[in-house]
Formats: sequence, structure tokens, C-alpha cells
Amino acid sequence: MFDETDIQMMQNALALAWQGRFSTSPNPRVGCVIAHGTQIVGQGFHIKAGGPHAEVHALRQAGEFARGATAYVTLEPCSHYGRTPPCAEALTQAGVSRVVAAMTDPNPLVAGRGFAILEAAGIQTESGLLEAESRKLNRGFLSRIERGRPFVRLKCAASMDGKTALSDGRSQWITGEKARADVQILRAESCAIITGIGTVLADNPRLNVRAFPTLRQPARVVVDTTLKIPLESQLIQDSGSPTIIATLSNDKVKLQKLSQYSHLQILRPSENNGKIDLHHLLKLLAEEGYGEIMVEAGIALSTAFLEADLIDEIVLYQSAKILGSHAKGLFDFIQNESVLSHPAKWKTVSVNIIQNDIKWIMEK
Amino acid sequence: MFDETDIQMMQNALALAWQGRFSTSPNPRVGCVIAHGTQIVGQGFHIKAGGPHAEVHALRQAGEFARGATAYVTLEPCSHYGRTPPCAEALTQAGVSRVVAAMTDPNPLVAGRGFAILEAAGIQTESGLLEAESRKLNRGFLSRIERGRPFVRLKCAASMDGKTALSDGRSQWITGEKARADVQILRAESCAIITGIGTVLADNPRLNVRAFPTLRQPARVVVDTTLKIPLESQLIQDSGSPTIIATLSNDKVKLQKLSQYSHLQILRPSENNGKIDLHHLLKLLAEEGYGEIMVEAGIALSTAFLEADLIDEIVLYQSAKILGSHAKGLFDFIQNESVLSHPAKWKTVSVNIIQNDIKWIMEK
Repeated sequence: MFDETDIQMMQNALALAWQGRFSTSPNPRVGCVIAHGTQIVGQGFHIKAGGPHAEVHALRQAGEFARGATAYVTLEPCSHYGRTPPCAEALTQAGVSRVVAAMTDPNPLVAGRGFAILEAAGIQTESGLLEAESRKLNRGFLSRIERGRPFVRLKCAASMDGKTALSDGRSQWITGEKARADVQILRAESCAIITGIGTVLADNPRLNVRAFPTLRQPARVVVDTTLKIPLESQLIQDSGSPTIIATLSNDKVKLQKLSQYSHLQILRPSENNGKIDLHHLLKLLAEEGYGEIMVEAGIALSTAFLEADLIDEIVLYQSAKILGSHAKGLFDFIQNESVLSHPAKWKTVSVNIIQNDIKWIMEK
Repeated sequence: MFDETDIQMMQNALALAWQGRFSTSPNPRVGCVIAHGTQIVGQGFHIKAGGPHAEVHALRQAGEFARGATAYVTLEPCSHYGRTPPCAEALTQAGVSRVVAAMTDPNPLVAGRGFAILEAAGIQTESGLLEAESRKLNRGFLSRIERGRPFVRLKCAASMDGKTALSDGRSQWITGEKARADVQILRAESCAIITGIGTVLADNPRLNVRAFPTLRQPARVVVDTTLKIPLESQLIQDSGSPTIIATLSNDKVKLQKLSQYSHLQILRPSENNGKIDLHHLLKLLAEEGYGEIMVEAGIALSTAFLEADLIDEIVLYQSAKILGSHAKGLFDFIQNESVLSHPAKWKTVSVNIIQNDIKWIMEK
């Protein structure tokens, strides 16, 4: 069904889609290549929500050359009038003779209707080419649509002996400059960064992308059950990133003050034993359009997410330093007696050297 | 001075030398290639102390073809009558016209005398080709000769969060089958394995190589200050490996009982604050011919070696399991306040995936 040229063209389309990894949220990352055999006549990728879809960029470049060509798209062309007209119609009007998609769009607004429009116009359609790669590219978007919650990555940094901070709390420079720069890339890829109020009070972080220019900053989410966030904290004073405060508090005075900051949004998840229900928080974030989320938090919130079984991927940076037994550990887990006798829940995906540190990726 | 052919032939000789990595101790690992240009006419490596040196194996294969050839050896040919006649003389008698060595033999019995014999016979000699590689191959032997103490590797295994055992001490199966098999290779490469009496009492290990056949078992060294080792322990009942008990005790009854086991040897290092002086222990082990040593011990002895600055390499296996904050940590260090502000003392050499675990090698 698919030949070598098809595979090569779809790989091109996937690489194009990847160009949008810092900016398409809440939309999926999509790439498109229009070709006659190996002769590419148009290519494009979706850059930003509200802007043209990948197919539109590619069709504009192809112009008349689109007629009789094959269009390779990493996701089924859309069928609905959103901020842009349906791409399935645009492809039809341009006269392509075949459309190859990596996967069906699970968005209920599309879900096969794109293919139906094309087929009704007599265009040959095929789906499933490099589907796994396309799914990986959009695991946040797909998780939001298919599971009703975001894909959640937990980022941790520790010493060789699994310590995250000295006993007095100091934790800067455990890992090196390049590992910290790598975290900036993970942040930029995320739709939102979740942290706890403890980290805000201790470190007053900005949790934004500063290492390179991006078209949008990821949102920041603070889990702040009793609304302790200081008005002078960077998350409030720096309006450059959309910022969500998840709280159970009804402190009207504080809420009134916070309402004056236009980049702030208050979310009210349900309660679970006096704490914020993290499952519900994630459901609300998905409803807000957040698909790919990174947890950058202290021991308490990181452990809470793990215990609630809400982490899909762990990225652990480790430095070749020894902090010793008095230093603070990574997780505050209740000891699990069965962990030794069972296979690891986490699967090692990759491990790499970054400068003198290692970056270890595990997924469930 | 050295051309591409020289480099290639020396690489062959190094690969040959590596074949002896499980068996040459206390001798160095040495390989030899005899060639006319790229035409190899003889090759060999040293297999076991008391047996022929690499040059002898290679010369036997080459026979008359050795005349006028170049001999590549990873270490300066010996000049002394040991258990075998000097290789420098054998090469001279065989009529080779050129000898290329990776490095001078720092053994005071040789140390340039091998080259002198060859040069006196009119043979062209050169040294220093791939010297770093040869030094790495024999870092145990070289450490013993040059520093008067063995090269010491610390092997550790921990969970993702730096834990080595549950709070009740159970630690089996933290890492997977393949990581444990990899440890067998490290053991086989070692001249001796050091452990503490705590590990002997808790786990009663055999500390030998069982995964594959070897020509010799590494020695086992127990740091047993007060001579607590039970007579029924495997280290005493299994006579398959030479076993050293390092102690400060003068318990004559126990010593008398131990003297009945021919595979046992008692070492009496000096005392340091009521404990065995680890510097002196290593000095004694070097004098006994042990060049490459691996520490496979619990938290106390591992920490003691690190604090005494006696570890040259750390091999850390980590599994993708979380044991949690109640579990036991890797090291019992006094917190070092300066560790955050200084560059890491350890340099990451490599990190690899083994099954679902990682193997992280660091050296000083």
C-alpha cells in the first residue's frame, strides 16, 4: 500500500510538523508535503493556533502544481469550519489526486469526516503511514482528546545519590548549565508547567522560557490549596505567561486582589482529603486546552502526582555529585514492599550524557 | 613516526591483549602482533601468569617469518628472567628488525631495559603508539607499580531515587538480570573484590564469577575489624576463590580455626581510630600483587572508601524503580556544603541502557 517514496515523504512531513513543537498548542503539530513522486511541490506546517493549517501553507506553495499530486499529512485533514476553512475542501479544490495521512484525527469534530469529504470528491485516501511517530509527536493533544487529561511529564534533577537539595534547602547548580538549558526546551514544548506553592515560596521561580525566542510562553499552574501565593511573587508580577492558580480557598480579599491581573486565572478543582484533587485538576486543564504538561515541583507535589498514578513520563537529570545522606531525597513515597518483587513500572526509553550530567527518560 | 599500518597493527595487539582481561593478574594484559606491512605472520596474548608471554606465542606462530618483521607489543618486552626467559632476547633471536611498543614497562625490573637489549642488537625500537589505550587496559597493574596501591572501582546498585534496599534491608532484584550479569564481568576483570563484614553477615555472598567459565576466580577480601566472620559463611566454606580476611583482631582461637582453611589468608593492616586503615590495606594488597580491585560493599564501607578518597571509578547501576524515602540510601556521607558550588569531582565517562536499567560510569 505504501512504498519507499511514501515513507520518505511522510518522514518529511513529520519533520515539518516538529517545527511547530513550541507554538501550535492547543492545536496539534501537523506537517504537510505535496509531491509528484519524489518531486516536492509544496510543504508546510502549522505554526500557531488561529493561523493557517499545514495543508494551506503547502497548497499555497504548490499552486497549480498541486493538481494530480499526492498530499502527505501527519494528521487527517480537518472537515470543520473553525478559525480557518476545512482543509479537506481546500485539498479537493486544489485537485490533488491522493491524500496519505499518518492517522485519523480523533477530534470529534473531525474523526473521519475529513477523509469522507475527500473520498466523496473521488480522491484516493489512505491512513496509518508512520502512525506511531505521528502519535508520539502529538501525545499531549491526543491525551487531551482521548483520555480527557493532559500527557504529564515529571521533570526531576538529583545528584548521583538521588538527592535534590542540601538539608537547608539549597539546590542550585546540582546539574550543569547544559542540563538546565535542556530543561528550557522541555518547558517550551509544554503547554503548561505545574508547580507547587512550596516551590513558589522557596524559590520564587519564573517558570518561563528564556534561553531562546518562542512564539508563546507555556502557561504556569500553581497548586495552591489555601491561596498562599504572595502578590509580589514573579508568577504574579511577570505577566508574560498565562498563569493559573488552582485553589480550594474562598479568601474573597485575596481573590479580589488577584482578579486585577489579566494574565491570572483561578481554577477551582474538587477537594480530596483537604487537598486539591489532582485528577480533577488535570481534567480541568484538558478542558482549558492544555495537552502537554510538565510537573516541575518539589518533593511533596512530585510524590503526590506519582502516588495518584498521573505521571506518563519521567525525565531525570542526574549530576555526578554526591550530596550525602543528610540531603533531601527525590520522592517522599510510602515504602512499597512489592516493588522489589515486581518488574519496574517504568520503562527506560533513553539515557544520554549532557556535559557531565545524565538525562534519563522513563515512560510508563 | 607511526603510519596507518602501525596504528592498525597496534589496535590488533590491544584487542589481543584484552582477551586476557579475566586471567593475566597479577601480570599485565599484553598483546603482540608480528607483521610485514599489513601481512600478519604471528599474533598472541598473555593468558596467565606462569605461561608464555604474548611475544612468545606470536613468535611461535611466526617461526621463520619473524625474520625482518615488525613486532607490535602493547607493553615493552621484558628483560628479566622470571618464570619465562626475557622476551627482548627472544625477539632478537628471531631476527625481527623493528619493535613498536605502546608504552614502556614501569616495572622496575624492566623500565627501559627491554628496549636497551633490542637496541644493542641493532633492532629499531619505538614506543608510545596508542599509549593511552594500553595504559587503560592495564590501569590496575600500572596503579600497583606506579602508585603502590590498586586501581579501585566502586560498584553500586540503586533505584531511580538512589535507594539500595528497603528499610528492612531487603535489596534483591533492585536491578535486572542483565545488569547483574554485567557485574559478573566486572568481577571477572578484577583481581580482588572487597566487601565488609556487614555484607557477609547480612547476605552471606559468594562474590565469585558464576555466569561464565574463567581461568581464575578473583580473590575476595573481607574488611572484618573484629573478626566476626562466621566459619559457616560461604567465603570460608567455598574454597574456590583465594580469600583474604583483613582484621585488627588477635582472637587466637578464631585465628587458629581459620588457619585450617588453605584458601584463607589473614592480613593485618594498621589501625586508624579503631578501624582498619584503608590506605594501608590497599598498600598491602598491592604488595600481594592485586592491581585491579572492586568494592562491592554496603553503605558503611562504600562511604569509608569515598571519604578516604580511595575510589578511582564508580560504576552505578540504577533501576527504573522507586523505593521511596524510607528505604536505605547509597552513601552515608557527612553533608558537604561546598559540593553545590564546585564542579563535580566525578567525570561521567559513559552511560548505557542494560535491559531496563542504566549503567553509569564515572571516574575521577
